[in-house]
Amino acid sequence: MKKRYLLAPGPTPIPSKTLLDMAEPIIHHRGPEFSSILGEIREGLKYLFQTRNEVLIFSSSGTGAMEGTISNMLSKGDKALVVNGGKFGERWIDICQAYGVDVEIIDVPWGEAVDPSIVKSILDQNNSIKAVFIQACETSTGVVHPIKEIAEIVKDKENTLVIVDAISALGALDIPTDRWGLDVVVAGSQKALMLPPGLAFASVSNKAWRFVESSNLPKYYFNFKKELMSLSKNQNAYTPAVSLLIGLRESLNQIKEEGLESVFARHEKLAKATRAAMTALELQLYAPTSPSNAVTAVLAPHNINGSDVVKVMREKYGITIAGGQGHAKGKIFRIAHLGYMDQFDVITAVSALEMTLHELGYHAELGKGIRAALEVLKD
Amino acid sequence: MKKRYLLAPGPTPIPSKTLLDMAEPIIHHRGPEFSSILGEIREGLKYLFQTRNEVLIFSSSGTGAMEGTISNMLSKGDKALVVNGGKFGERWIDICQAYGVDVEIIDVPWGEAVDPSIVKSILDQNNSIKAVFIQACETSTGVVHPIKEIAEIVKDKENTLVIVDAISALGALDIPTDRWGLDVVVAGSQKALMLPPGLAFASVSNKAWRFVESSNLPKYYFNFKKELMSLSKNQNAYTPAVSLLIGLRESLNQIKEEGLESVFARHEKLAKATRAAMTALELQLYAPTSPSNAVTAVLAPHNINGSDVVKVMREKYGITIAGGQGHAKGKIFRIAHLGYMDQFDVITAVSALEMTLHELGYHAELGKGIRAALEVLKD
Repeated sequence: MKKRYLLAPGPTPIPSKTLLDMAEPIIHHRGPEFSSILGEIREGLKYLFQTRNEVLIFSSSGTGAMEGTISNMLSKGDKALVVNGGKFGERWIDICQAYGVDVEIIDVPWGEAVDPSIVKSILDQNNSIKAVFIQACETSTGVVHPIKEIAEIVKDKENTLVIVDAISALGALDIPTDRWGLDVVVAGSQKALMLPPGLAFASVSNKAWRFVESSNLPKYYFNFKKELMSLSKNQNAYTPAVSLLIGLRESLNQIKEEGLESVFARHEKLAKATRAAMTALELQLYAPTSPSNAVTAVLAPHNINGSDVVKVMREKYGITIAGGQGHAKGKIFRIAHLGYMDQFDVITAVSALEMTLHELGYHAELGKGIRAALEVLKD
Repeated sequence: MKKRYLLAPGPTPIPSKTLLDMAEPIIHHRGPEFSSILGEIREGLKYLFQTRNEVLIFSSSGTGAMEGTISNMLSKGDKALVVNGGKFGERWIDICQAYGVDVEIIDVPWGEAVDPSIVKSILDQNNSIKAVFIQACETSTGVVHPIKEIAEIVKDKENTLVIVDAISALGALDIPTDRWGLDVVVAGSQKALMLPPGLAFASVSNKAWRFVESSNLPKYYFNFKKELMSLSKNQNAYTPAVSLLIGLRESLNQIKEEGLESVFARHEKLAKATRAAMTALELQLYAPTSPSNAVTAVLAPHNINGSDVVKVMREKYGITIAGGQGHAKGKIFRIAHLGYMDQFDVITAVSALEMTLHELGYHAELGKGIRAALEVLKD
């Protein structure tokens, strides 16, 4: 008998009630029952995104909504500024380039957050930049970028949008879309929303809708205006992933019931406990100065390959964590505390990690990490 | 107590075993367990599509794969020929136009199939046409187009592809991709595959892969080459809709077990019984000369609105069928016999329809339709 634990930064575990809701017989997406559910979902998404604007829904992975954001906001030859500090920063660049958008890049060392003053000085020198693209949480490095500060810089610039990939952040970290003035916030179903992958979301500010009017890039499946019009009638433009939307209604209800503040506080506590455990084990955090409360990235100890840590965790202990991506492959491992997770998921992760590292030849005192985690969790 | 019956042409009912498989705790999409499942799925899709080529998988509705087909096969300013005999023919046109593809249109009256000789004469007169776009089953009208004959015409033309939207046809009608020489066949999860919406598929011939090499249209999420490369390693390029793929494995197993020939024969019998019932009730088929075995479209009787038929069926009898779309709205209703359906689903549909029409003032002899259906079903 081997119990399985999923502690990677997406997909994340799904509450049983949600799984069973999605296993109900499917209903038709053009009938009144589904429309009424979509009406509830629209309200729930506004609560989650902390916005009064409509949140668009796409049946795709988060990458689809990232692409849609670019193809709906920009035009060929437009200039964009991308903060690139990890694999998902690179994705903004790749999509822009696929569409002939001219990209200026701020290269941030992996594991570090961008310095907002660099964003400011580039924007001040170049008023033709139409959009700043950034991650709220760069999942590949476990870094949180200073979104609030960057939004503050962009806010007064009539011709520039701030566009945030919050796929692994929304619902885990406090990202008040309207209060901070974020123009587009992209999210996905398989992170803090506690659902299978297959749904993506994008909130769109009034300022951003003006950009949509002048955009000339080709788009069809990810057509923001068409989805907005359909949503106003409690419909989706194309056949939506019905069962995932049934699950979404339940997840949004659960989040509403716990309350966003409690959800954020829970993620913060779990993250702090995890980081305390790593430090007690004398492991180095990969993002020590600006760590995310969604996922903790840890440097593998000297002489130990991060991929081996992931492998032993999975094969010996039934626990799925994530390794490094891109040039961090082999150097780090990543433990999520994201979505449907509580303190005992942290305890499980840390205790398995202690045993794994021991087996791989790293001899920290057993239980030292757990003790540090408990010190944080007990309050 | 009201039992619910879903008899619309997508989404279609989902077998209980599949629903429960999808309700299992989610697994990570980059681990060995999921890769092994994806390996099974790749083989199952080749069987279903009757092809030796790889079948690409996208987490989106079928429309996403239609868009991807255009953006991966064609270049800006290319000429395409679209057979337009319904709402989904129009969709090919709309997507082409969104991407700056120059469209020549064969307008076919709704409810009729295209005459292949018209396709031939246009292609013979114009050798710059890069692709012929068509539906195998035009879901909005219940028509089957002569795909085999059109493929035969296109086959020898080096610079022209035949591209088939088989979203409501594949797995219901016999469409042997390789034997007929179809270059791209697009399908979706929520029809004959007996799954929720959210997955789309595209088989790609060797000839079509050569077109991909020279295509210059922008693409990112629906990138055929990237998905092909990922699939060869039993991966998806972007986070896939894991739970739907778990369901897909089960559906493909069920189809394999029944055997494609039996699946097609079952659909044919159910369709024949439905058509016989309609004729016995003195109703007119909307597509009398080339009706699909996936869905039967029926003209509403004089003085009765097709939308009222749909409404009474749903509200009084708990049965979801489909109305007309576009300019057939109000004129027709559509009964599906598609996917996880057997003879008693036909009996249910016909008996509810008899009572519904009676209520709406159309007085055919009660049981006359059922009797005709039983005559077909008993053999």
